[in-house]
Amino acid sequence: MPNQEHTLDDVFRALADPTRRAVVQRLSAGPASVKELAEPFDMALPSFMQHLRVLEESGLVLSRKKGRVRTCHIKPRELGEAEEWFARLRAVWEGRFDRLGTYLDELQNKGGRT
Amino acid sequence: MPNQEHTLDDVFRALADPTRRAVVQRLSAGPASVKELAEPFDMALPSFMQHLRVLEESGLVLSRKKGRVRTCHIKPRELGEAEEWFARLRAVWEGRFDRLGTYLDELQNKGGRT
Repeated sequence: MPNQEHTLDDVFRALADPTRRAVVQRLSAGPASVKELAEPFDMALPSFMQHLRVLEESGLVLSRKKGRVRTCHIKPRELGEAEEWFARLRAVWEGRFDRLGTYLDELQNKGGRT
Repeated sequence: MPNQEHTLDDVFRALADPTRRAVVQRLSAGPASVKELAEPFDMALPSFMQHLRVLEESGLVLSRKKGRVRTCHIKPRELGEAEEWFARLRAVWEGRFDRLGTYLDELQNKGGRT
């Protein structure tokens, strides 16, 4: 799945920055204007806009301009793909320890028989 | 938490590459030698070692050399921190739709009374 792989590259790269992670967390609570989003950061607006651009290019964030206000929304699908990547990993990881548990149980049962 | 933020930067940056994600997924099933890990990739060994270095620097992977064999392990703590980041996001996100659900229920109840 080259497209999904490409999406994951962009999503993880976008999340590799504390400002961008904070913006995603703010937007998960609901849409916000660029002005509201930028407010908590001690950062020049052009630098903040550059972070927003990375988030939009990754597909995590969508923005729409109405009059003079640009409002940003989160896009749950792209976030979901990254979250699923961790879920698949956990499934393999937990399977590994389930097998280890079974093995230890078997050892213990054998020990009980002697 | 500057340290945790730093960890998350490194972890997400390390995961922004399909080769490195594949290595992490392979290692979640159990430890493997560098030779075993490199085998599925059509890549020169120095390039592959560079990916391993990024994974080690991020704290996701630990390697130990015994004799001539270097064996790699996954470090679950760092992966867990990234997974928790998504869990926190989901909690906010789901709280938002719970509130929306309550609001829609209230609207419906008001509608029923007229």
